[in-house]
Amino acid sequence: MTLTPPPADSRQRMKALLMGLQDSICAGLEALDGEGRFREDSWERPEGGGGRSRVLREGRIFEQGGVNFSEVEGENLPPSILGQRPEAEGHRWFATGTSMVLHPRSPWLPTVHLNYRYFEAGPVWWFGGGADLTPYYPFLEDAQHFHATLKGACDSVDPGYYPVFKPWCDEYFFLKHRGETRGVGGIFYDYQEPGGALYRGQDPRGPAAVAGAGLTPPRDWEALHNLAAACGGAFLPSYVPIVERRQGLAWGDRERQFQLYRRGRYVEFNLVFDRGTIFGLQTNGRTESILMSLPPLVRWEYAYTPEAGSREALLTDLFTRPQDWLGDGSLLERCAPHGAVG
Amino acid sequence: MTLTPPPADSRQRMKALLMGLQDSICAGLEALDGEGRFREDSWERPEGGGGRSRVLREGRIFEQGGVNFSEVEGENLPPSILGQRPEAEGHRWFATGTSMVLHPRSPWLPTVHLNYRYFEAGPVWWFGGGADLTPYYPFLEDAQHFHATLKGACDSVDPGYYPVFKPWCDEYFFLKHRGETRGVGGIFYDYQEPGGALYRGQDPRGPAAVAGAGLTPPRDWEALHNLAAACGGAFLPSYVPIVERRQGLAWGDRERQFQLYRRGRYVEFNLVFDRGTIFGLQTNGRTESILMSLPPLVRWEYAYTPEAGSREALLTDLFTRPQDWLGDGSLLERCAPHGAVG
Repeated sequence: MTLTPPPADSRQRMKALLMGLQDSICAGLEALDGEGRFREDSWERPEGGGGRSRVLREGRIFEQGGVNFSEVEGENLPPSILGQRPEAEGHRWFATGTSMVLHPRSPWLPTVHLNYRYFEAGPVWWFGGGADLTPYYPFLEDAQHFHATLKGACDSVDPGYYPVFKPWCDEYFFLKHRGETRGVGGIFYDYQEPGGALYRGQDPRGPAAVAGAGLTPPRDWEALHNLAAACGGAFLPSYVPIVERRQGLAWGDRERQFQLYRRGRYVEFNLVFDRGTIFGLQTNGRTESILMSLPPLVRWEYAYTPEAGSREALLTDLFTRPQDWLGDGSLLERCAPHGAVG
Repeated sequence: MTLTPPPADSRQRMKALLMGLQDSICAGLEALDGEGRFREDSWERPEGGGGRSRVLREGRIFEQGGVNFSEVEGENLPPSILGQRPEAEGHRWFATGTSMVLHPRSPWLPTVHLNYRYFEAGPVWWFGGGADLTPYYPFLEDAQHFHATLKGACDSVDPGYYPVFKPWCDEYFFLKHRGETRGVGGIFYDYQEPGGALYRGQDPRGPAAVAGAGLTPPRDWEALHNLAAACGGAFLPSYVPIVERRQGLAWGDRERQFQLYRRGRYVEFNLVFDRGTIFGLQTNGRTESILMSLPPLVRWEYAYTPEAGSREALLTDLFTRPQDWLGDGSLLERCAPHGAVG
């Protein structure tokens, strides 16, 4: 495959974008938390590159939050990526990315994850990224707000993205052994370049078969750079209002125990399925930075089932299944009896 | 490869052995705990077979303990096993096993794991198994007792086993991304059959290069059955005296926090590396039974390092590295200043 080369300063520009994203997110989160401060560790990787990890612990809002920037290089990409990008075989590779996971204290506040990344390897280059929300208690308005904000960011570049990246996110953040999505999703994309398929997931029908078929946005380097900028910039507006709305709610041991239990699913996803975690561990990344996504305290309970009709059951039955958050009117009827609206 | 067929009643005999092992272990642990009782769930697997899972929660000694028996069948083994046993391709397979993980309440008591299993698939059959100990605080005598008991069980069948299975255990229960063994090890073996190599791990030199070279015990079906019986039967004598010796020691928040932190390593190993967990999830096993190995409460802490010279540092530096527990006299000198002897 012949790919138009990226701009001469592509690495610098993406690095600047992603470091700026890390800076703005950290500043916004410190302002929101009011007490917690990020501690920064810079690190170098023996094979080339390095990063700056920032972790906030025991804040007012956040029990733990990590925002990591990295820029790494190496001789050979791991097999999991070469399978998707055989043209990269035998070429030095470069990758830069910013990733974030926040674990709030309050069980009413959702965990949230974001990652935007860029690769170059010989004749090929591509963009990937996304953001997804994992509530512990169901609030329809929060899921809708998160999706609407991300959809707005995607649409600002091209309306063809969200209809594909939303179902792709549901597909990617799926725990097969539980039959559950990680949460209410968001957007996910990978291997984005001008010529290739918009959807490159596992489903042979593909999200494009469901929605957005035929709409393939132009994806030159500039458009994909703009997409990362728009979606990355949408993070604070997608999440901060949720925290502001729920932060005053009191909670008790029941909610805390359910939160700790559900955090177990987060660990299971990240260690068994997550592409970024596996890439990091396979490429001799900095373990502490890779695993800062894991929650500070987690509980497993054998054969737990939530009480029928409870909010915990609604979370499990509705908020860990793919839903058309922005279009399905029946969600309101299902959520309203549980105080899960507004 | 032509393999002598197993006895006509091989499946029944292994099933009886492994169910009997589950029974005797559960009875011994209930007697030891004095308060906790195992709850049993029987389950069936859609593709064939099933099992009985037993879980004890919130006992006096055990925060959680699971002892699982299963007997499952299927059309095709997963690729991870076919790579080691290409002769099984295209044949129905049968597997039976008993596995156990115990998470004690007291940080002075080690977590312990055991698994013995037997496979048949077309023209091939093999045995696997082992047991390993994961202390949270270092006690040299406990590591020595555990190893000496398992060595005795191996030696009762053939003295050629322990010198190979001990280093194989250190190799298998290794967290690459941490540069640590899971604990002080024990024994591990897999793919045992009459004709094949005694050692079938990943190290190209192999433990046999280190010790026991040339000693290849006869391994007909009966000998391997006897090995599983001897090692399985050695579990209670290998572990119960450790609990009896340490159960009266008081502990505080410092010890509890370190225990919860180290439990994180157990989760990382089981979800990223463990062959049994991956096999179970790949073959559509019962998720709750597979993941009952995960600790009930776990903590992660970014960039934690134990204080130099502390018992926590001794655990990390000495008890998560391969050691010759039964032969290296210098261990005593290193442990004694920390109250980690006797």
